[in-house]
Amino acid sequence: MSQDPLDAGLAALGEFGLIDRIRRRAGTCAPGTALGIGDDAAILVLEPDQDLLVTTDMLLEGVHFSRDWGSWDALGRKALAVNVSDIAAMGGSPRQAFLGLGVPGDLAIGSLEQFLDGLEAAAAEWGVTLAGGDTCRSAVGLVLSVTLTGAVAHGRAVRRSGARPGDRVWVTGQLGASAAGLLALSRGLRPGAPWPAGLDRPAWLGPAEQAALQAGIAAHLTPAPRVAAGQALLGCAHAMLDLSDGVASDLAHVCRESGVAARIFAAQIPVHPAARVAARWSGQDALTLALSGGEDYELLFAADEDPTACLRQAVPTLPVTTIGRIEVGAGTVVLELPGGAIVPLRGGFDHFRSPVPI
Amino acid sequence: MSQDPLDAGLAALGEFGLIDRIRRRAGTCAPGTALGIGDDAAILVLEPDQDLLVTTDMLLEGVHFSRDWGSWDALGRKALAVNVSDIAAMGGSPRQAFLGLGVPGDLAIGSLEQFLDGLEAAAAEWGVTLAGGDTCRSAVGLVLSVTLTGAVAHGRAVRRSGARPGDRVWVTGQLGASAAGLLALSRGLRPGAPWPAGLDRPAWLGPAEQAALQAGIAAHLTPAPRVAAGQALLGCAHAMLDLSDGVASDLAHVCRESGVAARIFAAQIPVHPAARVAARWSGQDALTLALSGGEDYELLFAADEDPTACLRQAVPTLPVTTIGRIEVGAGTVVLELPGGAIVPLRGGFDHFRSPVPI
Repeated sequence: MSQDPLDAGLAALGEFGLIDRIRRRAGTCAPGTALGIGDDAAILVLEPDQDLLVTTDMLLEGVHFSRDWGSWDALGRKALAVNVSDIAAMGGSPRQAFLGLGVPGDLAIGSLEQFLDGLEAAAAEWGVTLAGGDTCRSAVGLVLSVTLTGAVAHGRAVRRSGARPGDRVWVTGQLGASAAGLLALSRGLRPGAPWPAGLDRPAWLGPAEQAALQAGIAAHLTPAPRVAAGQALLGCAHAMLDLSDGVASDLAHVCRESGVAARIFAAQIPVHPAARVAARWSGQDALTLALSGGEDYELLFAADEDPTACLRQAVPTLPVTTIGRIEVGAGTVVLELPGGAIVPLRGGFDHFRSPVPI
Repeated sequence: MSQDPLDAGLAALGEFGLIDRIRRRAGTCAPGTALGIGDDAAILVLEPDQDLLVTTDMLLEGVHFSRDWGSWDALGRKALAVNVSDIAAMGGSPRQAFLGLGVPGDLAIGSLEQFLDGLEAAAAEWGVTLAGGDTCRSAVGLVLSVTLTGAVAHGRAVRRSGARPGDRVWVTGQLGASAAGLLALSRGLRPGAPWPAGLDRPAWLGPAEQAALQAGIAAHLTPAPRVAAGQALLGCAHAMLDLSDGVASDLAHVCRESGVAARIFAAQIPVHPAARVAARWSGQDALTLALSGGEDYELLFAADEDPTACLRQAVPTLPVTTIGRIEVGAGTVVLELPGGAIVPLRGGFDHFRSPVPI
């Protein structure tokens, strides 16, 4: 019988062999993990005066990712990153992760090991202990479901519901990079690879533009959740979330939960260079990509003071930009164009309505 | 445009329409839910002197269930039940559920509403608040991932690792019903329906046997996690787990985690009548079905005293049977046959090795 070579399928390893391999990578860095992988449930002991945050995100092959887009370790990292971003958006510190893993029977063990490499490295980076999960066979592609806990000082978590008229709306980083990367991937570009033979390249799309698209691909495949920024904003942000569906959709959530309206200024949106290139390449509007593309995993927050002082020590080089203001109203978000015209801001990714570019 | 009829696909409702529908069903019964659905993460406040339990289970269409086996509300109930069973096996009380839902775009809203009906009713029954989740489109059938928290007195959770030589091994209920039900479903029987036209029925398989198979189907589709029994055993069980893969596999986990061995007596296994019928019908051994079939969601535990006194008040009618004993050893489980012969006990469901009868 097989000596369990890395290209063998999981039948060679078995369900419990796989669980053992995951368990060896569990790590022990997160406080409060009284019992991790290996029982019916994990046992968590809360630190004094801390609340527990819980978030969960699913990544499905053929919807959220395609196997041939990038490396397996990047996928392992991203499965955790999208959850870490949710904890960051509450101002919390990531703690314990629970991994639901539906694996096609023919997936090579080596690929799964690379996935676990990426997950393990990301967990170590963010201080996360892999404390439990569930593994099963999938008849339908790789299914990933990560649930992540976080800790935050009791009563201090930053909700979506605290925005007040008069607050300004801020975002960290630049927007639209991930959407640009997704477009580039869907057209055949691959991370770190030269321009594909057989793919038309417009004359204007030179080395600088290709580098921008590669930055977009990196932003899409290996997003960098703003953990330190989220924690630094605990004393400053009235409301906060992470940009997963795009400002157009996500700011509407803040407005609805807070019972306010918002006005965004088109001229102030920090559009990532990759979004400008992808927009020109695809005949779209760069601002639309930046506002509706999704998966930027930057923080959007409302605050009535300049957050620079809050952020300076924790993330001195992270750009933070005011893009609009909170107004009296009932959930609507409008976009003020440079000429002064005002349009309703709609859009953002909807899983049941938006086309999926995979 | 569609008025969102119940047979419309989810595009008519949209991702955020679906989230609103789920949110309306969240419930508010579980203590400690400071913030539920509607933010980046839920906020949980632990009750004093309680530990938090966390477990997660995935149900995939085509692996764990088939759409045409039963009702959507039974599926909603089961998605929660399998997690409740894990919390019960630690002696805990279920608290907050997080629902990962990957939905095929063409799934009728009415089916999803029935699924949510079942989940909501089950949550109310077990005192669970639906506190968060993630919804997305699935290209590959319905994907369900439930993460459930539970509460247990600090330091009191019953782990798998506490079995000691000299303990006896006990199980609640009867074994093999679910495996029998799964076999019946895979051969075309349906819950509450008459014998299918076109399916051969052996002469010996009369009304009593059909009723037994229906009991097996009910056990498979609507398992009854032993929450009250698990809590009652807090003062009595040294080690405990719920039978999800079968005694053969699950008792080996207890032995491995506890650093002991176990001996099971074939004559003492409480074989469910459905398993006897299914075994005869399929030419299998009833004891094998009972020990390796899986998904019984009964409790298996090790205790050095008769647990009847612990259980009498909480679950006066639940049978509890001693099936073997814990011995000095290193993780092995053996089966002692009625004549005194001893065979290694192996098997149990393995997701990457066992055939899937769907």
